[in-house]
Amino acid sequence: MPRLDHLGIAVRSLARAKGIYENLGLSISPEELVEGEQVRVVMIPLGGTRLELLEPTAENSVIAKFLAKRGEGLHHICLRVPDLGAAVEKLKRDGVRLTSEQIKVGAGGHRYVFVHPASAGGVLLELVEGP
Amino acid sequence: MPRLDHLGIAVRSLARAKGIYENLGLSISPEELVEGEQVRVVMIPLGGTRLELLEPTAENSVIAKFLAKRGEGLHHICLRVPDLGAAVEKLKRDGVRLTSEQIKVGAGGHRYVFVHPASAGGVLLELVEGP
Repeated sequence: MPRLDHLGIAVRSLARAKGIYENLGLSISPEELVEGEQVRVVMIPLGGTRLELLEPTAENSVIAKFLAKRGEGLHHICLRVPDLGAAVEKLKRDGVRLTSEQIKVGAGGHRYVFVHPASAGGVLLELVEGP
Repeated sequence: MPRLDHLGIAVRSLARAKGIYENLGLSISPEELVEGEQVRVVMIPLGGTRLELLEPTAENSVIAKFLAKRGEGLHHICLRVPDLGAAVEKLKRDGVRLTSEQIKVGAGGHRYVFVHPASAGGVLLELVEGP
């Protein structure tokens, strides 16, 4: 059964955005640079799932463009599915639009795809593999 | 410690938006009308948290206005905190902006407030009380 792995939130400043979550008593991971995606991130564990705050590190990055167009806010949700290959095949058979044809491999070898918002009620939906 | 109670997604059509989640093998609650908020909703349990899909039932409703302005997509996140009164007092002391001064009481007697997106990295943040 899929689970909510994390919820990505685009922000202009991690330092400023962290405040509200610290106020609510949540613990916040150290900042981490993800060079491939041109973002600096923190993770906030939240009872079985996580919030991911994303601050852009380059003006032409995906997150910087999102901020310029829509402002700060919710950017994507990530579901963890037990068998990513099977899920992708099933979605493709049903005509669901993915942002890339192939499963991508990211930092630490984790495999992921993005479902296009047009196929998911306006939500950018990331799928990763895991229990 | 706060938990993610649910994640609200504004959609034009529940019937259409449910498809991707059914495809991923998730179970979806029967549609429910929430008259006070002028929405029809379904809940999708997701391993300890839930997605809430919201379809407007009136043109001047909050969700209809959101759709007109931003299109379909992520609308709010809802955190469950153990003591809502204490959380609200702490946030107010720290200058956090709420959309209403008082805790509101909704369907079934549940108590809630919304933190203004300006105080939460562009995210409309609902707080409810619960374990």
